[in-house]
Amino acid sequence: MFYIIGLGLGDPEDITVKGLSIIKQCERVYLESYTSILCCGKEKLEAFYGRNLILADREMVEQRADEILEGAENQSIAFLVVGDPFGATTHTDLLLRAKEKGISTSVVHNASIMNAVGCCGLQLYHFGETVSIPYWDDTWKPDSFYEKIAANLEHGLHTLCLLDIKVKEPTLESLMKKKREYMPPRFMSVSEAASQLLEIVANKSSVDGDAPNSEQRHGLTEQSLLVGLARVGHETQKIVACSLKEMKDVDLGPPLHSLIIPNGRLHPLETEFLQQFAELDLQKS
Amino acid sequence: MFYIIGLGLGDPEDITVKGLSIIKQCERVYLESYTSILCCGKEKLEAFYGRNLILADREMVEQRADEILEGAENQSIAFLVVGDPFGATTHTDLLLRAKEKGISTSVVHNASIMNAVGCCGLQLYHFGETVSIPYWDDTWKPDSFYEKIAANLEHGLHTLCLLDIKVKEPTLESLMKKKREYMPPRFMSVSEAASQLLEIVANKSSVDGDAPNSEQRHGLTEQSLLVGLARVGHETQKIVACSLKEMKDVDLGPPLHSLIIPNGRLHPLETEFLQQFAELDLQKS
Repeated sequence: MFYIIGLGLGDPEDITVKGLSIIKQCERVYLESYTSILCCGKEKLEAFYGRNLILADREMVEQRADEILEGAENQSIAFLVVGDPFGATTHTDLLLRAKEKGISTSVVHNASIMNAVGCCGLQLYHFGETVSIPYWDDTWKPDSFYEKIAANLEHGLHTLCLLDIKVKEPTLESLMKKKREYMPPRFMSVSEAASQLLEIVANKSSVDGDAPNSEQRHGLTEQSLLVGLARVGHETQKIVACSLKEMKDVDLGPPLHSLIIPNGRLHPLETEFLQQFAELDLQKS
Repeated sequence: MFYIIGLGLGDPEDITVKGLSIIKQCERVYLESYTSILCCGKEKLEAFYGRNLILADREMVEQRADEILEGAENQSIAFLVVGDPFGATTHTDLLLRAKEKGISTSVVHNASIMNAVGCCGLQLYHFGETVSIPYWDDTWKPDSFYEKIAANLEHGLHTLCLLDIKVKEPTLESLMKKKREYMPPRFMSVSEAASQLLEIVANKSSVDGDAPNSEQRHGLTEQSLLVGLARVGHETQKIVACSLKEMKDVDLGPPLHSLIIPNGRLHPLETEFLQQFAELDLQKS
């Protein structure tokens, strides 16, 4: 049997009782590497589970899936991922490969940022399409996610923005060499995401000939209310509600961060709940 | 401290290790009544946790919140809900009331149907607004959810349809009497939901003067691909992919059921994954 087990939001104790008892009886246990770098760390998980974990980076999962699945016809093999197992297409692909080999599979679900964002009080039913905000560099500034945010705003829906993570990215120089060298892991903060959004808003305004705070054309303005979240589900969780312009200067500390763009027509209960995270008085604005 | 703890998808073992250890140290533990009626049952949970649970129905949560929160300034009180704590506005409201009283609160997240639907292989990032399909009766047939499905289809997004649940609904006769009597609990099946959808599709076609399978006007037709899910995350989980017309005759067994309306432009990996649940050959259709 091949198990994919969700670890939830990242504390070792966030695993389900079902997931933990499966880990204890498995022959081999793989840990998807995003998990260990960005959450509590491999060593802490090993101590909590009382067993060794094999780190599986993206390259291993995508190119050496056979190695992971080896023997799963007769043995129990587990693959651990942060959040819920169906957060990434890579894991769906692993399940398909297992089925092709005639290996039985089983999934243990857990919380993911996709449902845990409800913690800021915005109703999950009022969310539209989720977007990913990628890191920009000097030459590559993709902004197609902005159209999705604008479409959600137009339909009165909140947008969850997942912020970019760079883990085990090879350095440009090492791509030419035999030995790969990697950049230190990076994660996008709500402040960095807000900077990129402000740049897009400014560009759209100048193209459209609008004032930068004209809401009619492009939905988002410097004054739009945003919600920044950090380390959701952890003891050190932080949430802040403020304008896009103010979010640029917000420091929510260590990873992971997420950003929500509320729909602009909040339900009274949503406003009341958000109020506790607000710098400004939401009921007035 | 007042804790709201998500129980996940419904097996007793779906609780997180963190959630279980909190339950064991709490003074009083409430169980939201939907949970016990529709999932594994109060007795089974009590046996697994090794302690008594107090059933809290909607009336108690909405009208006697003070009773639930009593003493939480100095004692630990837990409130258990199926899925994730932020699935329903009622629970957000409980947290607000606790804060008003100066009571500290803490939330333990878990999987909910909102993220676990990824198990059918449709990517969570491609979902639009979630809709609820309510039970119809002879005189009341609300269909406003249909516009949301059509809007999602237009934008190339999947729609998760949450199907109605009727728990502890007073009988019409007993509303006049002093003593309330309740109807047996009901849950909507994918077959019932498909019947209602077919009726809407037929009505729209006749109003618009279109043939019933004209896709241009209203997005959904008898031939549209649907995905039905039952008991997600449980050992007896069932998923079926078929046309809306065929879904009317599908029997997925005991609750809970959910329905997905895919966007009509599936990614190849989504098609490949769905294929295993299909009666028909998706790649051809």
